[in-house]
Amino acid sequence: MLPNEHHLRTPGPTPIPETVKHAMNQPMIGHRSSHFSDLFNEVAPRLKPIFGTEQPVHVLTSSGTGALESAVTNTVSHGEKVLVVVAGAFGDRFASICERYPYDVERLEVPFGESVKEEALLQALDTHSNVAAVVFTYCETSTGVLQPVEKLTKIVKEHSNALVLVDGVSCIGGVPTQMDEWGIDVLVTGSQKAMMLPPGLSLIAFSERARSKASEIDSLTFYFDLSAYEKQYENGMTPFTPAVSLIYGLQEVCNLLDQEGLENVFKRHELMKNMTRAGIEALGLPLLTNEKDASPTVTAVLGTEQVNTDELRKHVQKKYGLSLAGGQKQLKGKILRIGHMGYCSPTDVLTTLTLLELGLYDLGYPVQFGQSVKAAQEVYVQHA
Amino acid sequence: MLPNEHHLRTPGPTPIPETVKHAMNQPMIGHRSSHFSDLFNEVAPRLKPIFGTEQPVHVLTSSGTGALESAVTNTVSHGEKVLVVVAGAFGDRFASICERYPYDVERLEVPFGESVKEEALLQALDTHSNVAAVVFTYCETSTGVLQPVEKLTKIVKEHSNALVLVDGVSCIGGVPTQMDEWGIDVLVTGSQKAMMLPPGLSLIAFSERARSKASEIDSLTFYFDLSAYEKQYENGMTPFTPAVSLIYGLQEVCNLLDQEGLENVFKRHELMKNMTRAGIEALGLPLLTNEKDASPTVTAVLGTEQVNTDELRKHVQKKYGLSLAGGQKQLKGKILRIGHMGYCSPTDVLTTLTLLELGLYDLGYPVQFGQSVKAAQEVYVQHA
Repeated sequence: MLPNEHHLRTPGPTPIPETVKHAMNQPMIGHRSSHFSDLFNEVAPRLKPIFGTEQPVHVLTSSGTGALESAVTNTVSHGEKVLVVVAGAFGDRFASICERYPYDVERLEVPFGESVKEEALLQALDTHSNVAAVVFTYCETSTGVLQPVEKLTKIVKEHSNALVLVDGVSCIGGVPTQMDEWGIDVLVTGSQKAMMLPPGLSLIAFSERARSKASEIDSLTFYFDLSAYEKQYENGMTPFTPAVSLIYGLQEVCNLLDQEGLENVFKRHELMKNMTRAGIEALGLPLLTNEKDASPTVTAVLGTEQVNTDELRKHVQKKYGLSLAGGQKQLKGKILRIGHMGYCSPTDVLTTLTLLELGLYDLGYPVQFGQSVKAAQEVYVQHA
Repeated sequence: MLPNEHHLRTPGPTPIPETVKHAMNQPMIGHRSSHFSDLFNEVAPRLKPIFGTEQPVHVLTSSGTGALESAVTNTVSHGEKVLVVVAGAFGDRFASICERYPYDVERLEVPFGESVKEEALLQALDTHSNVAAVVFTYCETSTGVLQPVEKLTKIVKEHSNALVLVDGVSCIGGVPTQMDEWGIDVLVTGSQKAMMLPPGLSLIAFSERARSKASEIDSLTFYFDLSAYEKQYENGMTPFTPAVSLIYGLQEVCNLLDQEGLENVFKRHELMKNMTRAGIEALGLPLLTNEKDASPTVTAVLGTEQVNTDELRKHVQKKYGLSLAGGQKQLKGKILRIGHMGYCSPTDVLTTLTLLELGLYDLGYPVQFGQSVKAAQEVYVQHA
C-alpha cells in the first residue's frame, strides 16, 4: 500500500469530495455582505427537501451537540418534563444535555443495539403524563440502529401533546426523511456525516408548533437562541459569524445531491448497508443489530471468542490506513463500527471488506480471501 | 480592474493565506483518532504565547459569541453581579449574553469611539461592591478602539475581587497580550480575524482562579461547559466533534506566526494602523478614535458634510471589489471601518487607500490622487 494511504470509514467525520474542497477554497467574504446573503439565500432553501420540510433550515456554527442543545432549550421551559429514549451513547448525550437544565428528565432505556419497542414507548407515555417533549435518536451512531421515527412520532402524537425532537446527526442526507409529514417538531443534523462536509456546521429545523412554543418561552441560551436565527434568516444571514467556507462547501454538497438525485442517494446508502452486512456475515462475524433495525449509514460488528475487534481495528488502521470506530460506553472493546455514508460508494465498501480480510489474515484468524467481497458483490449485482 | 477582483478589508472575516487553505484541504480524519490527537497536541500549546498564558487554550467550534457565552457561564454563578463595560456593539453583545442568565448585570456605558476612563471604572467598582466579574472588550470592532486592558485589569484587581473577562476577538494575534502577567482571568478570540482562518473556531483560556471558580459552580450550558473541554484536553481532543479542517489550518497559522515572529507580527499591525490613519487624514476624512485609543487591527472613519461613508463604501465595493464595513448601532450610516489585521500587509493598506481615492473621485468628492498613498508611504519608510 502507499505510505499515506487513508480510508476514512468512521461514522463521521467522513471523506470530503474534491469539488466540495474546491468550493470551500473560494475567497473569503464578509458575513454581512450581499455576497454572503446571495450565497445563503441560494443554499438555505435547498436544505428543505433533505429534511422533508417547508420550514426554514437554520445553519449553526457548532457541532451537532450544539444544535441538540438548541433543540431543547428553545422548546422546553423550566420545570417541564422531557422523555428521552436512550438506546446508545448519543441518546445518553441528549439526555445529559436535558439534565443540565431545570427540566424533569425521564430516560427510557433501551438495550444498546435495539430499537425502542412500541409497547415500551406507550407505557412510558402512559406513566409520564404531561410530557412536553419526547426525544429520539434517529440513527444511534454508537450502535448502528435506525429508530423507526415515523412510526414512533405517530405514537407520540396519538397519545400525548408532546413535541417530538429528533437527533438525525448521523443519517440525515442518507435516509428518506419527511419531517413535516411525519410530524417531527425539531430535526437536527451535523455537517460531517452524510452531508459530506468537514465538521463545524449543524443544521436545525423547527415545526410551526415548535416555533410557536419557542416564541412563547425564553431560550435558555444566547448562542443557540432560535429567535436570533429566525430574525436574520429573513436577511439571508445568521446572527453570529458563520463558518463561511463550510457554507460554500454546503452549496456544492447540494449540487452533488441534486446531480445524483436524493432518491438515488438513499438507495445507494441502503445498498451499502446490505453489502456491508452480507460481507461481515460472510466473514463469520456477528452483526450487533438485526436487519430491521439496521441503519443505512453505519454498521456495528461484534467480536467473537476468536476475534478481538479492537485488535483488528488498530491493526487495519496501522497497516492499511483503514479508519474504523470502536465501541462506546457499555460497548467499549466489544464492537467495531463501519461508516458507509456521505461520500462513500459501493466500491469503498468492497475495499473495506478486502482490507478487513487481510487484517484478519495478518492476525492469524481463519479467513478465506475474497469470501466477504464475493458476498457483497452478489448483493451489488442483484440490487444496483 | 479584473471582473472578480476582491479586496476583503472588513474587520473579520479576513483573507485566508494560500498555505492555510492548502492545510485545510488535507484528508479528513476521525476526531477520536491518534491522527487527530497528534494534530491537537501539536497545535494547542502553540496558542499559549499568542494569549500570553501558561494555561491551556481551548478550541471551541463556534463563533466568538459562543466563546463569550462560555466565558461567563463557567465563571459566574446564579445571582452574582457582572459589570460590563459597553463601549460599542460588541460590549453590548457581551452584556446581552450576560442578561440572558440569572445574573445581576450592570452596564458601564462609554461613548462609542472612546476607551473607558479610569475614574469611571473606579467609580463603578466603588458603586457596585461584590462584583463577581468585570467584562472588557479588548478591541471594540465596531469603533476601532483598543481598550487598555492591562491597566484596566490592574485597577479591577486592586479595587475588587472580581474576575476579569476579556473579549479579544478582533485583536488577539495582532496585538501584544500577556494574559497571565496582566491578570486576565478569561480571554477569548475567534478564528476569522487576526488569526487568518475562516470563521468557525473560537479560542478561550481560563486563569487558575477562573478554573477554580468554574470547578465550584455548575456551568449554565452543556456545549460550552469548560469541564468537558478540560477533561478531553488531556487526551488531545475536544468533547464534541471539532471543525477538523480549521484545526489543520490553525496549525499552519502557527507556522506563519512563527516564521514572521510574533513581535514582528505586532509591529506590522502597528505600522498598518499608522499608515491607515495617516492616509485617511490626508484624504481629509476624520478618524473616529484618537491616536491613543486606536486599535492596530481596525480603523473607523467618520463621514463629513461632503462625504457619505455608506455611499463611498457601497461604491468601492461595487466598482473595485473593495469590501469595507459600515457602522453598527448608533454609528450606523455614520462611519466606515477598514480592517487591517491578519493576512494583511502594508501593501494592502496602500491598495485600499488608492481605491478609496478613486472612489471619492468617482463620486465627485474633491480628492488629489496619490495624496493619501503618499502619507502612508512616508509612515512606511520612516517606521518599517
